[in-house]
Amino acid sequence: MNILGYAAHSATAALTPHEFERRAPRPDDVVIDILFCGVCHTDLHLARNHFGMTTYPIVPGHEIIGRVAAVGSDVTRFKLRDIVGVGCMVDSCRQCAACSTGHEQHCTQGPVFTYGSIDRHDQTRTFGGYSQRIVVSDHFVVRVPAGLDPAGAAPLLCAGVTTWSPLRRWKIGPGAEVGVVGLGGLGHMALKLAKGLGADGTLFTRSPGKERDARRLGADHVILSTDPAQMGASSGRFDLIIDTVPYDHPIAGYLPTLRFDGALVLVGYMGPLAEPFNTGPLVFGRRALAGSFIGGVAETQDMLDFCGAHGITSDIELIPIQQIDVAYERMLKGDVKYRFVIDMASLDAATRKPT
Amino acid sequence: MNILGYAAHSATAALTPHEFERRAPRPDDVVIDILFCGVCHTDLHLARNHFGMTTYPIVPGHEIIGRVAAVGSDVTRFKLRDIVGVGCMVDSCRQCAACSTGHEQHCTQGPVFTYGSIDRHDQTRTFGGYSQRIVVSDHFVVRVPAGLDPAGAAPLLCAGVTTWSPLRRWKIGPGAEVGVVGLGGLGHMALKLAKGLGADGTLFTRSPGKERDARRLGADHVILSTDPAQMGASSGRFDLIIDTVPYDHPIAGYLPTLRFDGALVLVGYMGPLAEPFNTGPLVFGRRALAGSFIGGVAETQDMLDFCGAHGITSDIELIPIQQIDVAYERMLKGDVKYRFVIDMASLDAATRKPT
Repeated sequence: MNILGYAAHSATAALTPHEFERRAPRPDDVVIDILFCGVCHTDLHLARNHFGMTTYPIVPGHEIIGRVAAVGSDVTRFKLRDIVGVGCMVDSCRQCAACSTGHEQHCTQGPVFTYGSIDRHDQTRTFGGYSQRIVVSDHFVVRVPAGLDPAGAAPLLCAGVTTWSPLRRWKIGPGAEVGVVGLGGLGHMALKLAKGLGADGTLFTRSPGKERDARRLGADHVILSTDPAQMGASSGRFDLIIDTVPYDHPIAGYLPTLRFDGALVLVGYMGPLAEPFNTGPLVFGRRALAGSFIGGVAETQDMLDFCGAHGITSDIELIPIQQIDVAYERMLKGDVKYRFVIDMASLDAATRKPT
Repeated sequence: MNILGYAAHSATAALTPHEFERRAPRPDDVVIDILFCGVCHTDLHLARNHFGMTTYPIVPGHEIIGRVAAVGSDVTRFKLRDIVGVGCMVDSCRQCAACSTGHEQHCTQGPVFTYGSIDRHDQTRTFGGYSQRIVVSDHFVVRVPAGLDPAGAAPLLCAGVTTWSPLRRWKIGPGAEVGVVGLGGLGHMALKLAKGLGADGTLFTRSPGKERDARRLGADHVILSTDPAQMGASSGRFDLIIDTVPYDHPIAGYLPTLRFDGALVLVGYMGPLAEPFNTGPLVFGRRALAGSFIGGVAETQDMLDFCGAHGITSDIELIPIQQIDVAYERMLKGDVKYRFVIDMASLDAATRKPT
């Protein structure tokens, strides 16, 4: 079936309407009419080829909420009109040690990402959620709890699970002290989820102006990271700090604020640090600098169920697809509270093809 | 009581005999006649003021095995002639969250180290195990299992517990893959302990000549870290890598050999890395760069009991105290298999004072 999406055709051109083919559903596939798609920093990175490995055209989008339009003959978990989600992955080998323990994102053969990857069966390129419809194997489809606003739920599929996964891995609950670095799409979700789990949440920020919003989002404390006195007073305090900043930035100052066995977990930036790294605070303080990468399918469902039970969604700005380039420009300036979500109804309904 | 030890009086002078006073035992004290004392890299660092914070004179030594010579009135766990050990610490606050959970090395008030620290009660400076006798609060004294060679057991008090602690924290047992970087005092203990715990052990080394010894010490595999093919073939393999190298060295190459949730734990080097650090392998691979610092008193006892049950001691070169400076020079060249231990009988028996 031919459908309409929005694609980047080069690193510098604006995204434009792009017609492409979705495969006919295989027996295990779910066909999803996309209602909303969150806009992740990764979309921007790959659309503009920041990593130098983009193949064009690229249709970004991996925070997908939609309605089931059809199911393959083997699909039993979903039925027509179910509200479902698709996150960063649409397939994996399903057999390796990672896949068989629910960590498909660490599949030893490499997961198939929702866009920009190669399908394991027919070697076609995957296209993401900036489109009318997507066809995904049922294992990689998650159920959206009733009552959760579908637009606000879209960012849970990436920003949500990316911060949820380390919170669960470090067994965060009542009594735990959680720090969050950066108040963007991921950071605001980290605060909400940490609060939902009963932890004491702290935002580290360089901007005093963010305090009010941070507290509204669930922060019990706000530490100005540029103030040595505030940082010093927090020595040895945190069980977990989730650093969501998506670009290179100094991290050394956060390590002494961890208690022993505490971890600074990077979820935003994946590249070289300009700042020299000193191992002293890790060794003397029995601390860890760790990373975490999205999350598995089962924990994505757990996170959605938790958000359903606690009424947690993302704070979003809903935009029509035609404003995606404006949104990218605003994201580059950190000007979004706190996630752009595309209302996919903005794609011309007239171009929709019958199933 | 005045006793004899060996002290450094400056960063450049040889260590020389030094008479000093040990306190009269307090009610909770154990008075220990020192039989053997291991020689740790830290001894060398502090004797020669590598960290620029040594106060002279300094009597090094924190791998102490001795015989109980007297006990204070409140001591019930030890009696005369027991063979006991003292490691890196002789006191702590005993009340903070760290102390009350058996992590005295992370005492929020700072532990009192066996040498070069200030006693919490009388503010005198602590002097270590290069001496005839030491007086230590019973909480910081551990029991040496019968049948364990006391000279070979001395390095267990620092090198042993320093490698044991991360092995236990990362729950290493049968089926686990453990890598060890560096084959020195700590590295050879890491191999023996990992093997004792049932893990599959691998030595990473830059020296092909170390393979035979590594296998004798328990390594199932040896990887030449300078060979990209061998390193590449180990991608995603290790649950835990214990890096024992006590000076700055490149670590980036080890990270890809960790499986997801794996950790590279630094126990030797505590300082700035010359090599730029890239967070990518941590984030994409859900890995950690962590540190670990000696171990608590209870886990030191656990480690000794484990070594007693498994017949594990350090491979040592026994030296008289008069050769300590020669030993330091050889350590600087990595020329020791695998730990120097001082036979304290070499201190002139004629100078020993009656209890």
